[in-house]
Amino acid sequence: MQVHGTPEPVPGDFSQPSHTTISKGLNIVTRTQPAFMDGNLDRLSGHRSEPGWFSEKLNAPGTRVAVFTADKLMVHSGPKGGGGIDWRSNRDLPALMEGTEPVFLGVDGDGINHFAAQAADNELVPADGMVALDLRSVALQGLIDSADLGLAAQARALLHWHVRHRFCSNCGAATRQDDAGYKRVCDTCSGEHFPRTDPVAIVAITRGQSMLLGRSARFASGMYSTLAGFVEPGETAEDAARREVFEESGIRVGDVRYIMSQPWPFPANLMLGMAGEAISEEITLDPDELDDARWFSFDEIIAMDQGNHPEGLQLPPDISIAHHLIRQILDL
Amino acid sequence: MQVHGTPEPVPGDFSQPSHTTISKGLNIVTRTQPAFMDGNLDRLSGHRSEPGWFSEKLNAPGTRVAVFTADKLMVHSGPKGGGGIDWRSNRDLPALMEGTEPVFLGVDGDGINHFAAQAADNELVPADGMVALDLRSVALQGLIDSADLGLAAQARALLHWHVRHRFCSNCGAATRQDDAGYKRVCDTCSGEHFPRTDPVAIVAITRGQSMLLGRSARFASGMYSTLAGFVEPGETAEDAARREVFEESGIRVGDVRYIMSQPWPFPANLMLGMAGEAISEEITLDPDELDDARWFSFDEIIAMDQGNHPEGLQLPPDISIAHHLIRQILDL
Repeated sequence: MQVHGTPEPVPGDFSQPSHTTISKGLNIVTRTQPAFMDGNLDRLSGHRSEPGWFSEKLNAPGTRVAVFTADKLMVHSGPKGGGGIDWRSNRDLPALMEGTEPVFLGVDGDGINHFAAQAADNELVPADGMVALDLRSVALQGLIDSADLGLAAQARALLHWHVRHRFCSNCGAATRQDDAGYKRVCDTCSGEHFPRTDPVAIVAITRGQSMLLGRSARFASGMYSTLAGFVEPGETAEDAARREVFEESGIRVGDVRYIMSQPWPFPANLMLGMAGEAISEEITLDPDELDDARWFSFDEIIAMDQGNHPEGLQLPPDISIAHHLIRQILDL
Repeated sequence: MQVHGTPEPVPGDFSQPSHTTISKGLNIVTRTQPAFMDGNLDRLSGHRSEPGWFSEKLNAPGTRVAVFTADKLMVHSGPKGGGGIDWRSNRDLPALMEGTEPVFLGVDGDGINHFAAQAADNELVPADGMVALDLRSVALQGLIDSADLGLAAQARALLHWHVRHRFCSNCGAATRQDDAGYKRVCDTCSGEHFPRTDPVAIVAITRGQSMLLGRSARFASGMYSTLAGFVEPGETAEDAARREVFEESGIRVGDVRYIMSQPWPFPANLMLGMAGEAISEEITLDPDELDDARWFSFDEIIAMDQGNHPEGLQLPPDISIAHHLIRQILDL
């Protein structure tokens, strides 16, 4: 599992939830699909490059702005699970921002435009009843609804990209935002730069009635998950799955079948979830990647899913695609 | 269909084959799968960051280097279809390169290390019997075998990334290559940068016994293909397919089913090939994106595939994932 730049977590890493826990581990929602997959805004991507369009939308009546400070989203802390995004008016923007521009997310069914903005790092003090919280914690605690999680993922991926791409990778000059946040332009070399989305192969490997799961040293204690890694240049998603599993566990994989994809905004991954069939059994661990990997019987996995595994081992939480891949393969 | 930086072609664009045509349009191979999908090298990605590993591999006896000049690969022009990569010895490297480092591709079953190198733009004169050719033409003309096409795609995507990422997007300082070509490091801000792979949703839309195909003004005359576009931040591959089809053609799409993925090295896309079911029929063209889009009966598509469509319309060539998506859905 290749790590794309510290301090970003790796795919499937659930070890570092925020220290701000609002609802004390209470799993408020039960998810029938991974988090961050829903988005009900029209992105209007065919219009974003039209002259004047961006400021017209930004200044339209009713425009709402979600605000991030560092990688944390401002949300209502509310009474248990009350939550919701702390939407700001476009009139609040000048006071919130420093050196960055808002990005367009989309328009809802009522014609309300949604934007996101990055406040200067750690200088934003949450208003009363609000809290700045990382998206993993927001999702785990069920603080905002599924559609808002989708647009929060979109916002986080875009804003992180802007923060890390203020300069031109081609010539080193400063760049400026364009296309409502979906492009950066270098006026020195005329280079155009587009948001990054990094495809990740994540795969549940079975052999008969057993499944291969592993854990990295970064995982929460007792948690085992499916193996994953970034798709490399010149590689199919299926071959990336085979390569990663072999490198991390020594297991050879034959057939690979795609199941579903999920945006995973830490910072901007596209998880490509698959099922694969092992054609070998003996595990050879790569200690740089994994702390442990084991074959689990389906019965053990059912116990993990139900929270009564004899060793107290657990599956990843249901915000992750790994959770749903595992359950889907076992038809749970 | 969003274009990622001129002058790179867009997904599914076959309008600009090289002016150097060796085998005069002869389609030498018939492909049972899209080009660029095979790779038979072990990438050894768990080892690439070990100290001293890169130069040990580069200097090992028998090491072979594929050479690019601009976006063109040096290949044997050979007698018809003879072809093959113009592999150079590692001893040739100093004379070939300027300001870039070679990148590691992988090791073959005989233990031979394979690298690729980018020669200074347009300064490399092909040796007798060699020619510098873009990968689309190399693939269309069947000049190198399927496994070599796979590593050529890997090489092209990686080298293009290095050429366009000599500076740190975070602070603007010069960066240096690390991890045998799979990372760039900024010594000024300690930023780490990884190769880009841009996921593209490409989808064959059907309604009953008809399929939606479109053409951009950039396409070769008479060619129609499946619609495609880049997956955006915070979006599933399936939703990206639905969004692109609606934006370009006005057609609403319901169920979407993944079929296969393909690396498409122009410059570094991962094509996610899908089939989708339309839930509307009336086409509203986005003239900025498409020149035309139509519903084709399956009979018409069979005629296009067999080269006897009454209007002379054609499917994309068999190096493309579009070609195979279309044929697979019709069970051809």
